[in-house]
Amino acid sequence: MNHDEGQAESADVLERLGAFSERDEWTAKGWCRIERSLDLIGTRSAMLVVRELFYGGTKFDELARRTGLSEAVVAGRLKQLYADGIVDRRPYQEAGKRTRDEYVLTERGRGLFPIIVALVQWGELLGDDHRTGVELVHRDCEAPLSAHIMCANGHEVPLDQAAVRLKDEAYVTAMRTRPHGSR
Amino acid sequence: MNHDEGQAESADVLERLGAFSERDEWTAKGWCRIERSLDLIGTRSAMLVVRELFYGGTKFDELARRTGLSEAVVAGRLKQLYADGIVDRRPYQEAGKRTRDEYVLTERGRGLFPIIVALVQWGELLGDDHRTGVELVHRDCEAPLSAHIMCANGHEVPLDQAAVRLKDEAYVTAMRTRPHGSR
Repeated sequence: MNHDEGQAESADVLERLGAFSERDEWTAKGWCRIERSLDLIGTRSAMLVVRELFYGGTKFDELARRTGLSEAVVAGRLKQLYADGIVDRRPYQEAGKRTRDEYVLTERGRGLFPIIVALVQWGELLGDDHRTGVELVHRDCEAPLSAHIMCANGHEVPLDQAAVRLKDEAYVTAMRTRPHGSR
Repeated sequence: MNHDEGQAESADVLERLGAFSERDEWTAKGWCRIERSLDLIGTRSAMLVVRELFYGGTKFDELARRTGLSEAVVAGRLKQLYADGIVDRRPYQEAGKRTRDEYVLTERGRGLFPIIVALVQWGELLGDDHRTGVELVHRDCEAPLSAHIMCANGHEVPLDQAAVRLKDEAYVTAMRTRPHGSR
């Protein structure tokens, strides 16, 4: 904790490294990955639609019924998820009916899988009836899934061994020293 | 895909197992872990406050400044995060000033760590300037973190090997067959 006098004494937060120790020098606005993610999926209703897509729902009325959201909300979310490249549309036709679109996750959408697992895992901790609800399991061995945080060197990393830093400190520092508006 | 004719042909969703194959038989309302999690942290502003708590911010004005949210929004979020057991309050006093509260993550709040990592990881895929922003690293070896989905038997599980099922099928089925309102 020698990086920042103002940092909480508890070791149970992310240690700030390097220039990011001076947190107030760095606005996260516009280049925070968390904020970027939340701009796309940071609403309850968007994530509920995504959940049903993960559970294999594809048709508009399935998604509305299974999320319990209004059709107007589901339509709005699907439109935005499509615009953001998270879902794709695919035409289908049932016998004797007109062609409609169904919805499937794109590769970007499927990339939300760790977030889905982490949300389920955290929800488990909230102390409801532990016998109800659904669980995510490994299809082959049926053991329940959880999200493990690991570093690129293969170490499992609990929160008290994790840290946060500017990604490319020299580059970011250089950008910051430019006059405003020169980007 | 023999569990449900209506399921998407793509293997890139969660396979539905057992009674949950008939997804429409099961409303997720009230016992979905994802929904439960989102009820508490399913807004952009709540997660931005949580982010700053993970980055070691503790004081109200730090949290407001660093999230870029209005003071009214931050106050509202902190009140709700406290009510939900995600943050705790701790009195502190600076010399010559009145006692105020600072905010720290509870154990439940620190349990959001995998969600934070998964959000950063997904945000990385969104194709912005990859040299800006912050990254989460292992403090000891400084290698970047990511969320790995594993089953309780230690297998790494990609989405196409994952499945979803009712947690305690016999129990849930028994509950469902009771007359409405008998719980």
